[in-house]
Amino acid sequence: MEMDDIVVKILEKPELKEPILIEGLPGIGLVGKLAGDHMLDELKGKKFVEIYSVFLPPQVNIQYDNTVKLVNMELYYWKNRKKDLILLLGDFQGITPDSQYKLADVVLDIAEEFNVKRIFTLGGLGTGAITKEPKVYGAATNKKLVNELMKHGVVFRGSGAIFGASGLLLGLGMQRGIEAACLMGETHGQIIDAKSAEAVLRILTKILGIDIDMTKLAEKAKETEEQMARVSKMIEDQKKAFERQFPIEQPTYIR
Amino acid sequence: MEMDDIVVKILEKPELKEPILIEGLPGIGLVGKLAGDHMLDELKGKKFVEIYSVFLPPQVNIQYDNTVKLVNMELYYWKNRKKDLILLLGDFQGITPDSQYKLADVVLDIAEEFNVKRIFTLGGLGTGAITKEPKVYGAATNKKLVNELMKHGVVFRGSGAIFGASGLLLGLGMQRGIEAACLMGETHGQIIDAKSAEAVLRILTKILGIDIDMTKLAEKAKETEEQMARVSKMIEDQKKAFERQFPIEQPTYIR
Amino acid sequence: MEMDDIVVKILEKPELKEPILIEGLPGIGLVGKLAGDHMLDELKGKKFVEIYSVFLPPQVNIQYDNTVKLVNMELYYWKNRKKDLILLLGDFQGITPDSQYKLADVVLDIAEEFNVKRIFTLGGLGTGAITKEPKVYGAATNKKLVNELMKHGVVFRGSGAIFGASGLLLGLGMQRGIEAACLMGETHGQIIDAKSAEAVLRILTKILGIDIDMTKLAEKAKETEEQMARVSKMIEDQKKAFERQFPIEQPTYIR
Amino acid sequence: MEMDDIVVKILEKPELKEPILIEGLPGIGLVGKLAGDHMLDELKGKKFVEIYSVFLPPQVNIQYDNTVKLVNMELYYWKNRKKDLILLLGDFQGITPDSQYKLADVVLDIAEEFNVKRIFTLGGLGTGAITKEPKVYGAATNKKLVNELMKHGVVFRGSGAIFGASGLLLGLGMQRGIEAACLMGETHGQIIDAKSAEAVLRILTKILGIDIDMTKLAEKAKETEEQMARVSKMIEDQKKAFERQFPIEQPTYIR
Repeated sequence: MEMDDIVVKILEKPELKEPILIEGLPGIGLVGKLAGDHMLDELKGKKFVEIYSVFLPPQVNIQYDNTVKLVNMELYYWKNRKKDLILLLGDFQGITPDSQYKLADVVLDIAEEFNVKRIFTLGGLGTGAITKEPKVYGAATNKKLVNELMKHGVVFRGSGAIFGASGLLLGLGMQRGIEAACLMGETHGQIIDAKSAEAVLRILTKILGIDIDMTKLAEKAKETEEQMARVSKMIEDQKKAFERQFPIEQPTYIR
Repeated sequence: MEMDDIVVKILEKPELKEPILIEGLPGIGLVGKLAGDHMLDELKGKKFVEIYSVFLPPQVNIQYDNTVKLVNMELYYWKNRKKDLILLLGDFQGITPDSQYKLADVVLDIAEEFNVKRIFTLGGLGTGAITKEPKVYGAATNKKLVNELMKHGVVFRGSGAIFGASGLLLGLGMQRGIEAACLMGETHGQIIDAKSAEAVLRILTKILGIDIDMTKLAEKAKETEEQMARVSKMIEDQKKAFERQFPIEQPTYIR
Repeated sequence: MEMDDIVVKILEKPELKEPILIEGLPGIGLVGKLAGDHMLDELKGKKFVEIYSVFLPPQVNIQYDNTVKLVNMELYYWKNRKKDLILLLGDFQGITPDSQYKLADVVLDIAEEFNVKRIFTLGGLGTGAITKEPKVYGAATNKKLVNELMKHGVVFRGSGAIFGASGLLLGLGMQRGIEAACLMGETHGQIIDAKSAEAVLRILTKILGIDIDMTKLAEKAKETEEQMARVSKMIEDQKKAFERQFPIEQPTYIR
Repeated sequence: MEMDDIVVKILEKPELKEPILIEGLPGIGLVGKLAGDHMLDELKGKKFVEIYSVFLPPQVNIQYDNTVKLVNMELYYWKNRKKDLILLLGDFQGITPDSQYKLADVVLDIAEEFNVKRIFTLGGLGTGAITKEPKVYGAATNKKLVNELMKHGVVFRGSGAIFGASGLLLGLGMQRGIEAACLMGETHGQIIDAKSAEAVLRILTKILGIDIDMTKLAEKAKETEEQMARVSKMIEDQKKAFERQFPIEQPTYIR
């Protein structure tokens, strides 16, 4: 029998009080991922769900201790406030359009199981320009939430589109009665943007009524950039090598 | 459990008298979409079905009021005449070849449920040239319908192919005993062509025996063009940003 | 419920005496298709099976009488000899690698149902050169058949690969105990090659012990070429137009 | 009914004593494949499993005796030592990302059925440089195995990623409690590298406590290279021919 396309491993079933789900998967400027990863580091969340999927790249990453880790998405929780938090983190999003839907849908299944009523998705909005004080743009599933976010300084433009998990958790979430908003940090688009991630986090923490130290964020962005450059270089080399070593290519029938 | 590939939401079950289904999804010159959207605006149809699918782009669009809308296809009905009308509209067609089949098949399920016996699909026929008085070309599922359309000025060429929903609703529809025709407005192909959409609508309304004011069509085309340019620019920027921010690419094994 | 990926319509269930299945789908130099189509024209076979599939291009073709025909594969039979014949024809092969397997598998289901014990697949072997007297290369599922074909002048090279239906009907057929051979006409590869198709047919008819007039083959090749150039031009235009009219493109997440 | 995506043919059910599974599928520098194929030749393993799949290229290869062989993966066993060996070999890996997962998962099903407790996957690590004494890099599913391999001279870098079967057999294997390591021979990446394969084999045989003559390895690499160049040239020609002969292309709807 074929393996399931998506495998959810629940490591623990914490009792959470109407937790708020925050998505910080990779996207434009890595803004969402940087913000999400930083939240985890500062708040010391606890991993309770792992999601594995054939829709993620077929690869393992080699860790510092030389053991491997299969690519996945992970959920963390944090209980130190009135409304608990859940963080959705990972190195990848689904690699095909339909898998984006299917992964978002599974995340929402989990969200419902833990009684999530509100979601914030974090991302970047690429402008091609570098700005000193990046704005945070928003969109939400209902007018009331739009108004609430406006009060916290979120900027609204009344047009555009949101791709991937940051969009689908809103679009599919609202069909389940979960209200959700996307916070998009203004960013150049072609740099890993800690400034933009910080702007997003400043507004998000204000909304959540929590406090997060931003000191290490820029540092982490730099580290991420270096590490990615290194890994990227190596992977690019390997990929090229890999491809050129396949003289027997698969024909593309009717293209 | 994985979500369904296509989800049909029936909002209302109107009693329709052998309604005629008209498809106005995006395609060449946006002729079909412009014509379909304009019909809706002028005839004030009522939405009764929404189709969501993993085969549509994984994105939400931000609306003027800053709330989001998940990409979908929609069906509208209009009851003010002997034979009622159903309009099929949307911003996208299925994004893979097989999904084109599956989405058309679901539309035909709905069509049968509402007793549709005839379908008109609207599209453009790109010629690479700009013409002042665009012809309307046709093709149909049977000779009798071809002859009927000829009398209304539809031009037939006896060759060619029709792609996507405009073609499959004919090809799959005839297998269910639904007669159908495609009306293709002559168009350059690389401009959003209100003139061509108008030509298609003039013939369609004659066939249907209804009247539609064309005044706002050109205006709408212009608006659409501007809006699309704006959105397109933004999306293009974001997409570029998005892609460049993924240093860890997925290898393409054997290509 | 979603439509089946492959739909087989059996129009008639003829009593066939261990028929030989001959595949003439499009491929290199259109050699196989030309040969197969010509056999049908000369032998006046009768259509008894239609195969429709989401794995074929989502399009209808407009016929000379202006009615449309949904893209498909078709099986014809011919009973005028000791061993009856079945022809497999069509305008396309499956458009994804896995669909090639699935379509070949369904064809073999049908073959078994009609008691087929032997298959010949027809194709071209592209050499990049133009030759006056094209050789016919072969490969088979067993040594005995190789030897039999050698006696009829088929040339063997002991290396290479056969893609698509012409290969899979052998590879999957032998797993069902159906012996099969592929006949590949030497061809330039970038022209529609009636000469090569004739060479293949000359050997095939010798093997089958039948006679086919070749007079109209060259003519048909020319016609095919003209028609394809015409259709191709039109389709190319439409496709370009189609693509450029989609300013809202789907992002490619992680490529 | 549609054929299964993956078909496993068990030819024999040998009694194996906690066999070690060694994967030698094609990849960077063909290092893993060369090493695996050479082990088979020297150790004279016995084939006991064949894996066919719609996820492999839709092609048959023509063998020296002019019969065809459907593309597959194969498992061999060898019983002449304390711990028996299983070899996983083949000409291709799965051609889509998700199929990589599904094929690895099926291999692990088989591994479990034969009581495999340890896996070694063999591959290359492309550096873009040519080196006289290629190092062998490693990664493993647990620290204990890392330490064990270090003692045998395997080099560890604490970063990077492993793609395809060589990675997934580790990542998915550890979820089933099978410990596994990947041995990657340092290699340029764009040549078929017998030297690197030899380096990998030297360490692997030391770990396994067996002896393999390396004399014919370089020879085989050369042969492979020549044969691949030949086949590759022919296939490239055919592919070009194939593609150009399809004037009726499939449109790409929304890209």
